[in-house]
Amino acid sequence: MSCPDKPGIVAAVSQFLYTHGANIIDSQQHSTDPEGGQFFMRMVFKLKDLNLTKSLFERAFNNAIAEKFAMHWRISYADTPKRMAILVSKYDHCLLELLWRHQHGELKAEIPLIISNHEDMRLLSESYQIPYHYLPVSKESKAEQEAALLKLLANHQIDVVVLARYMQILSSDFVKHYPERIINIHHSFLPAFIGANPYKKAYDRGVKLIGATAHYVTDDLDEGPIIEQDVARVSHRDGADELVRIGRDIERQVLARAVNAHLSNRIITFENKTIVFGG
Amino acid sequence: MSCPDKPGIVAAVSQFLYTHGANIIDSQQHSTDPEGGQFFMRMVFKLKDLNLTKSLFERAFNNAIAEKFAMHWRISYADTPKRMAILVSKYDHCLLELLWRHQHGELKAEIPLIISNHEDMRLLSESYQIPYHYLPVSKESKAEQEAALLKLLANHQIDVVVLARYMQILSSDFVKHYPERIINIHHSFLPAFIGANPYKKAYDRGVKLIGATAHYVTDDLDEGPIIEQDVARVSHRDGADELVRIGRDIERQVLARAVNAHLSNRIITFENKTIVFGG
Amino acid sequence: MSCPDKPGIVAAVSQFLYTHGANIIDSQQHSTDPEGGQFFMRMVFKLKDLNLTKSLFERAFNNAIAEKFAMHWRISYADTPKRMAILVSKYDHCLLELLWRHQHGELKAEIPLIISNHEDMRLLSESYQIPYHYLPVSKESKAEQEAALLKLLANHQIDVVVLARYMQILSSDFVKHYPERIINIHHSFLPAFIGANPYKKAYDRGVKLIGATAHYVTDDLDEGPIIEQDVARVSHRDGADELVRIGRDIERQVLARAVNAHLSNRIITFENKTIVFGG
Amino acid sequence: MSCPDKPGIVAAVSQFLYTHGANIIDSQQHSTDPEGGQFFMRMVFKLKDLNLTKSLFERAFNNAIAEKFAMHWRISYADTPKRMAILVSKYDHCLLELLWRHQHGELKAEIPLIISNHEDMRLLSESYQIPYHYLPVSKESKAEQEAALLKLLANHQIDVVVLARYMQILSSDFVKHYPERIINIHHSFLPAFIGANPYKKAYDRGVKLIGATAHYVTDDLDEGPIIEQDVARVSHRDGADELVRIGRDIERQVLARAVNAHLSNRIITFENKTIVFGG
Repeated sequence: MSCPDKPGIVAAVSQFLYTHGANIIDSQQHSTDPEGGQFFMRMVFKLKDLNLTKSLFERAFNNAIAEKFAMHWRISYADTPKRMAILVSKYDHCLLELLWRHQHGELKAEIPLIISNHEDMRLLSESYQIPYHYLPVSKESKAEQEAALLKLLANHQIDVVVLARYMQILSSDFVKHYPERIINIHHSFLPAFIGANPYKKAYDRGVKLIGATAHYVTDDLDEGPIIEQDVARVSHRDGADELVRIGRDIERQVLARAVNAHLSNRIITFENKTIVFGG
Repeated sequence: MSCPDKPGIVAAVSQFLYTHGANIIDSQQHSTDPEGGQFFMRMVFKLKDLNLTKSLFERAFNNAIAEKFAMHWRISYADTPKRMAILVSKYDHCLLELLWRHQHGELKAEIPLIISNHEDMRLLSESYQIPYHYLPVSKESKAEQEAALLKLLANHQIDVVVLARYMQILSSDFVKHYPERIINIHHSFLPAFIGANPYKKAYDRGVKLIGATAHYVTDDLDEGPIIEQDVARVSHRDGADELVRIGRDIERQVLARAVNAHLSNRIITFENKTIVFGG
Repeated sequence: MSCPDKPGIVAAVSQFLYTHGANIIDSQQHSTDPEGGQFFMRMVFKLKDLNLTKSLFERAFNNAIAEKFAMHWRISYADTPKRMAILVSKYDHCLLELLWRHQHGELKAEIPLIISNHEDMRLLSESYQIPYHYLPVSKESKAEQEAALLKLLANHQIDVVVLARYMQILSSDFVKHYPERIINIHHSFLPAFIGANPYKKAYDRGVKLIGATAHYVTDDLDEGPIIEQDVARVSHRDGADELVRIGRDIERQVLARAVNAHLSNRIITFENKTIVFGG
Repeated sequence: MSCPDKPGIVAAVSQFLYTHGANIIDSQQHSTDPEGGQFFMRMVFKLKDLNLTKSLFERAFNNAIAEKFAMHWRISYADTPKRMAILVSKYDHCLLELLWRHQHGELKAEIPLIISNHEDMRLLSESYQIPYHYLPVSKESKAEQEAALLKLLANHQIDVVVLARYMQILSSDFVKHYPERIINIHHSFLPAFIGANPYKKAYDRGVKLIGATAHYVTDDLDEGPIIEQDVARVSHRDGADELVRIGRDIERQVLARAVNAHLSNRIITFENKTIVFGG
């Protein structure tokens, strides 16, 4: 939940939850400024005997609390995991990392499908028993392909789209369908090396660390809210190819952490930045 | 605050604070198990118009909340910084780090005195305008020196004692006077290399990382609750002397972070472990 | 190569290589003490036109250089990758990491077989087209199983054995067959938490970092020369299960780096420690 | 030394050194490409009985080796530490770090003077017994101040100039006097956040890591060869002021490591990049 900060929010929310028989398991909050700033809170609670249906519970919360504090809010139910689509091109490292972690229960989601503009990742996807959809794209067919893509996502009731090194730029129109629900991995420490070939640029500049950045996709290329970043040390010994190799290890970890944070409902966005509560 | 976990704690505490006009600035909690485990919470709140004196406020909290939930609790007032004594022997790096951070407002404490069994650190201490007390110690004079030490600490109403590479083992009797209020820096990644000469032992074992550990001092040498740890990479090129040099950088950072967490009231101990809430 | 340090070694070796038409690509050296210590050197060179057969070249080096300086030495040929066997039990993370890196050309080796005391990893192994051998073991059958194991390794002319979370302790007799050629991953920051259940021990001690250690296997459990170590940060929020999960990410990276260093002939052991030259 | 790569360089140099009675303590090399690339080498050697004067030795090396391979080369003598000037404005953290490490023998240099455009750091400088020169500067007096600065540096035979958060941009003319001998610390992970107020920019962009970069100063602001970089993790909890505080810890470590590499003659520059050999 998010609302203008003022005294009494925590009291009101926790009192509401207590009255409805909920036990608060975890609570984290953040305020841009206790005096007149914006307040953010994430509460994890357990409802043993939900004495109302979910929709009644939500309506009650809205009427009793949310309206009073002018809140943006949402409730996610742990028994209803998000539905995640993975888009991929030819590189396997991010896809494999997500599939392996999903298989081990680290990513709480259903993955009804993987979509690609190439056939290369079919075998890997199917070895994890996930349907693979091949949607090739060219300059001419882009609008058409995105329409097919949107239809597929809608048909599968997808909540979140992960670009696991999907090497196509999505149109502004496409992005509008999934605001703050498309996660991309960019293979540089943003805002350094925006755009194409970041490892080549990093090599040419002679940096001593290379990085990767997971962010929500917005209209502006590589300018969306940053979710997670990390770096690895490199040296003069490492050529451009070696940077690609070392970078792979960072990309897959950073993307996996960002996806995990999103699926665990630990992220709130505000003014093109993210609040990522601890896991 | 800490108590057996059960529904309604957050609601009760936040309602109490709201009623008394407090605005909750930050709140963090932890539970070892929501069903029958132990619950821990740290709330930071602002009391604009404290409508009671501090002692009346505390009594009200005790009667209304703490007794009901069988809480251990304490309130620290930001306008009353802790009083910290630093004990040191001959090494300057941890002492200098603490003094520099204190000077820059990073450590919210008063430092009324520095105590040492050597004269070496007098100049440094006095350059930061902090009185320096020289209390030499030998095997024979140990009991006597500790008595003088305790008297000095009591006279200066010390809340927390930091051993900034103080090369003496404090007696069990001494430790009893400051339970969970003496912070030591051990120059290894505990529990590896307990006891004397950890860098020499690390060198002999051929480890690829060396570490440092800040912990509360208990009766058992190097066995108290760990507050903070960190490591640095070393290689076959680094001899035992070089490990000492690299280790200094880790020691001072780890100790500074641990002291900061303690002074900010971010640590709760439980069953020889620490809960360290984020800063 | 390794020998007592004295002036003239680099000159003699590089002169020999030059005379035989080799271009030195990389050279790294280390000395425990330039006065009377032990000298270690790794040279990578390119022989465009090897004007002798390999065995003649080696004999020439031995006669002209090695005997004079009392060297231990070996030559590895880049056109003859090492033959590596992977032993595994039920956990897939280390195995998958090695297979994926091998597939991407990061590990210069042939992997003629994977051996396990369980059937669990057959599917994964075979999806990478590597023959899987199931050799179950019990207390009674241990000697017999190890004999079968040794025979398999010998039949496949194995150079190096990687224990990718192989949950059996190899007998001293077995280890003797592959001195400094068996690499194990231990799931703690050795020498902390030697033996079984290191994550449980780490959780009980309340450490703030957990680690993993890759080492050569010797007679003494977890006491062999350390090749590589790394750590990850944990907090009071992380239960014992979570440590296992976080630890997996460290284990697979540390093991992969150690195996890579071994396969690239970048490791020399000396007095139960390793010299690991940069990659 | 640096020259076009070809067979025989190591042999020739090491043979020359051996002939002159030198024992090679350490040797590291790098080649951009063994076929037609550029070769770089750093050799550390001990001349017990230098059977020539230094200048004769250097002339012999030049005639016998350097001319033959078209080398750029230089010899630094461990008994003649470099002379280092530190330029500072009002922040103390980088200056204190350098002075403390110098006092502990970590930085092999003489520091004959500290120069500032403010008086603030006089006390600190003089507490380390280093003369402090106050050279105020304004837009109008800039040329004049730089002339005075250059004169001071020349009078003290300065080899290397360290900008320890010196908040003035040096003119192109000034820089020409000390090519690859002026080291600056920039408080961002370059090339991100070039120019003024990088922490403010980092805060506004919402990055999850902040960094610092030590580089040689060239005509182009923040575009010189990067020597060393590092980062620290930040979160939504950290405001712009907190980034400044966290950044200080990175700045001082990164600058100290870069200065140490320069003073140890471990850096070679090539095409606006650095080769930094291991310490």
